[in-house]
Amino acid sequence: MSTREREKEHFMDKIFRVNMTNLTTRVETVPAAWAGHGGRGLTSTIVAAEVPADCHPLGLNNKLVFAPGLLSGTAAANSGRMSCGAKSPLTGTIKESNAGGTSAQMFARMGIKALIIEGLPADDKWYNLHLTKDGVTINEETALVGKGNFAVIDAVSERLGKKVGVITIGPAGEMKMASANISVKDPDSKIRSHGRGGLGAVMGSKKIKYISMDDAGAPGVTIADPEKFKTAARIFAKALLDHPVSGQGLPTYGTNVLVNVLNEAGGLPTKNFRYGQFAGADKISGETMHDTIVERGGKPKHGCHAGCIIQCSQVYMDKAGNYLTSGFEYETIWGLGADCCIDNLDDIALADHHMDDIGIDSIETAVMMGVAMEGGVLPFGDGKGVIRLIKDEIGKGTPLGRILGGGAAHVGKTFGVTRVPVVKGQGIPAYDPRSVKGIGITYATSTMGADHTAGYTIATNILGVGGSVDPLKKDGQVELSRNLQIATAAVDSTGMCIFVAFPALDIPECLPALIDMINARFGISLSGDDVTNLGKHILKLERAFNIGAGFTNMHDRLPEFFSEPVPPHNAVWDFTGEEIDEFWNF
Amino acid sequence: MSTREREKEHFMDKIFRVNMTNLTTRVETVPAAWAGHGGRGLTSTIVAAEVPADCHPLGLNNKLVFAPGLLSGTAAANSGRMSCGAKSPLTGTIKESNAGGTSAQMFARMGIKALIIEGLPADDKWYNLHLTKDGVTINEETALVGKGNFAVIDAVSERLGKKVGVITIGPAGEMKMASANISVKDPDSKIRSHGRGGLGAVMGSKKIKYISMDDAGAPGVTIADPEKFKTAARIFAKALLDHPVSGQGLPTYGTNVLVNVLNEAGGLPTKNFRYGQFAGADKISGETMHDTIVERGGKPKHGCHAGCIIQCSQVYMDKAGNYLTSGFEYETIWGLGADCCIDNLDDIALADHHMDDIGIDSIETAVMMGVAMEGGVLPFGDGKGVIRLIKDEIGKGTPLGRILGGGAAHVGKTFGVTRVPVVKGQGIPAYDPRSVKGIGITYATSTMGADHTAGYTIATNILGVGGSVDPLKKDGQVELSRNLQIATAAVDSTGMCIFVAFPALDIPECLPALIDMINARFGISLSGDDVTNLGKHILKLERAFNIGAGFTNMHDRLPEFFSEPVPPHNAVWDFTGEEIDEFWNF
Repeated sequence: MSTREREKEHFMDKIFRVNMTNLTTRVETVPAAWAGHGGRGLTSTIVAAEVPADCHPLGLNNKLVFAPGLLSGTAAANSGRMSCGAKSPLTGTIKESNAGGTSAQMFARMGIKALIIEGLPADDKWYNLHLTKDGVTINEETALVGKGNFAVIDAVSERLGKKVGVITIGPAGEMKMASANISVKDPDSKIRSHGRGGLGAVMGSKKIKYISMDDAGAPGVTIADPEKFKTAARIFAKALLDHPVSGQGLPTYGTNVLVNVLNEAGGLPTKNFRYGQFAGADKISGETMHDTIVERGGKPKHGCHAGCIIQCSQVYMDKAGNYLTSGFEYETIWGLGADCCIDNLDDIALADHHMDDIGIDSIETAVMMGVAMEGGVLPFGDGKGVIRLIKDEIGKGTPLGRILGGGAAHVGKTFGVTRVPVVKGQGIPAYDPRSVKGIGITYATSTMGADHTAGYTIATNILGVGGSVDPLKKDGQVELSRNLQIATAAVDSTGMCIFVAFPALDIPECLPALIDMINARFGISLSGDDVTNLGKHILKLERAFNIGAGFTNMHDRLPEFFSEPVPPHNAVWDFTGEEIDEFWNF
Repeated sequence: MSTREREKEHFMDKIFRVNMTNLTTRVETVPAAWAGHGGRGLTSTIVAAEVPADCHPLGLNNKLVFAPGLLSGTAAANSGRMSCGAKSPLTGTIKESNAGGTSAQMFARMGIKALIIEGLPADDKWYNLHLTKDGVTINEETALVGKGNFAVIDAVSERLGKKVGVITIGPAGEMKMASANISVKDPDSKIRSHGRGGLGAVMGSKKIKYISMDDAGAPGVTIADPEKFKTAARIFAKALLDHPVSGQGLPTYGTNVLVNVLNEAGGLPTKNFRYGQFAGADKISGETMHDTIVERGGKPKHGCHAGCIIQCSQVYMDKAGNYLTSGFEYETIWGLGADCCIDNLDDIALADHHMDDIGIDSIETAVMMGVAMEGGVLPFGDGKGVIRLIKDEIGKGTPLGRILGGGAAHVGKTFGVTRVPVVKGQGIPAYDPRSVKGIGITYATSTMGADHTAGYTIATNILGVGGSVDPLKKDGQVELSRNLQIATAAVDSTGMCIFVAFPALDIPECLPALIDMINARFGISLSGDDVTNLGKHILKLERAFNIGAGFTNMHDRLPEFFSEPVPPHNAVWDFTGEEIDEFWNF
């Protein structure tokens, strides 16, 4: 091999493959068909290619795939998101869930294009995986089995050093609960989550407690055209900082800036989606949260990964000034707050901490709690009760905890509740689809089940970003959701945080700069149309998987109870099936 | 109105309609399109016409329909089965489940073609319905809420007299558990069940604890051609008595005659479908059961409805000679026996008693217990544990009881179990589809979810009835299941017990006699082809409903784990999707 060939080989990304049935690992070259993909595009491509759509999500034939984005590991602002994909035990659909933390950048630096975990151990042992630039080792794990995520991150950091990256599941994932998430260590040894769709249960089914990674000696990311990259990166970063949402709103108040905004719009689902406004909104708002954090000496700004310049995360302290939680998001606060009628932010923060530790999706769990309250498990407004259920029932896997850990649809079925806000088995988040109709189209049609991030029409329906579409009227919503879902599928492939969409929609230089960075990174020449086509391709690929799993357009529907009017606008969900199905005409 | 018109009016069947939302009732004339239907054909026709396929099964828009068969209330042997239909909370499909007891004949005598219950009460009150020939009354019920089925039947008999008919739900139905059944009083004030598909939860959602009926002064059934009817009925009854299965095997050993037969064939699913033979088979067999019943002074023969001449039921006593259970079926004994590895018939009988009292489907519950054992809830073989779980957990609606009451699929999801024998959410009964392949086609394709009665290929695969098709080979199974499912859909419309199929398949005079009885009853002239077309029409109607509810051919599949070989034949489920889909080519 010539020096040049060796160098090229050195810089070539690899697929790391782990077979848990026979406990073997392999480093593979990247198939040509996968080369242009990253993040969600790659996880969905691999899952669609290698996982039988009709398999049991916790069985032998499902695979768990991690892939950093196309720009992860570069100096591009906000490019450190990691995608995780599989067939979802919560929804039965294909699933991609992305998270911040340190893993995406470490994967990219080590030249790991994707990690594919397949098979199931024949015995009852637990394992950990350790990744370096040279490959994967599988090791039996005993000490950390049953431990919470914070303990795992601390212990692994102690075992292998502070710099090591960690991907872990808590007790919920070990118990294969359908709302179990996968946690990722962030730059401060706190937790970021691949939250939605129960991917933690897939990792648990494969008996992997955690994945550690050490990028010592890793080659790093090669940029084909460094000058071009630098120029584009500067323009891109400036756009992020210039936009009022990503440059001011999110850094100041976090995503929780939305409580007051949605409450005002009458779209803040309250008491299990009975009302669109919450009397206690002010007590749980971003503004209140900001003041509380400052008062208690926490951090109102915080990044989920190195290179984030939006800093929408925070460090929230308790009354005594001790760390309580971070990555404390609007959707969690809405869900346990307005939807469960809890107006105590400290209760919600403590619940968030326990959810992080146990390893369950805070959106699914919040929506689920509203359904559990509907079913009489605990009264609306019982914040202490929620904390107890999370910690002592879900965390300990009692029968009640197993029910709750199954998510909103599961709780609804268990208790015979009909008011169950889910699509394709996944809890509907934080924005009422009757009073913000564009997001209803996203919930209905997303390949992932109800998922606001799949096509965040709130931007245009409520925030006036990317134009304006009246949230209460049907006109233009299908097109809006379609365009955003296509764009999001592409952006989810880059490793970019979803919030780059705000400047991308409003600031003309932003999206071309993003494309320029991809072109400069790989020495290619994608156009805007290519990116749109990539987004379309991903959505269609995911939908084809879902059809193979037994889904039809009849699953692209909101629950029956959304025909009830929601105050204050008394809006109803009034799209016909035919109108919704127009979504897929592209 | 002339005397003749009054007489005609008097004899015309009616639709009784109950609206639980506004607590009104109506007696309606039968629409022309429904006139030729009865039993399953009628319940499915009404559900398909009036229930939106995508509605929540426990919500406002589902309807619960009861309809006696076309021959119910006549002197035709074994014609006293009642069909109950709705959208199923267990499967999400259309559902028909039929039962013996006294209700079908009373409905027919009172001229009730069907009872349709729609809507949901706005308040939290419970109700009972009372039917007479003149209509329905809705009455508030308090005393019997929370009571078991035996107590309800006793109390209603005390309130209204011994002769009154009763349809009731137990605590499981009140709690809207997905495996809740609907119980019917039989001629001895014992219990028969509309077992499968969670119809008890639908009745519970409508807040109806029981339906009583008094046929005093009822017109009775008019026979258009009494002589022709009498002749045909005699031929039909003789065929039933002449056939070795309906005339000897079933009367002597009950359906439980099948334990030894299936064990010998290697098709008795054992330890949650791991093996095809059970070491303890002899201890739970029909032969052992017969001897035990005789020894303890029980009744080895018993009919589930007046006019039954097969008498496959029995009265099973405990060691002290006290009543323990009746309607003690092979599928229940198989499920708690071989599938849960329990070889104590008394334990199974006591469990059966509690299931009857609580009101849960004994097949779903038995299959579920195997999955619960797989999930570590209790050890295989723990008969006392099963009794405790049914009585103290399911019966009392504890969190664990709520999980278990949700059925096999629900338990599988709750505990992350992959070995879950269900199709369309309904537990697979008593015959391994790998070693009896015809029944696998029925499980896969039935519009009802896994249901052996939908197309009982065991007749031909195992018992040599209606010819012979090798159970271990794929050849001919799709056609066999198709023919049987078409015939069954038609027979289920007559009010006939499914076991008339045995003589109908083997004795040439039997089926023509059955058709002659229908013709003589209504003064019409159906041919054999008309009956076949009726069966085809019903299946297609049901399938169209399911497609509207989001089902596709991908749901016509057996679970993944049936690719594992099952001893002793080491047979696997080897039908391709395409081969299964051939079923619907008619």
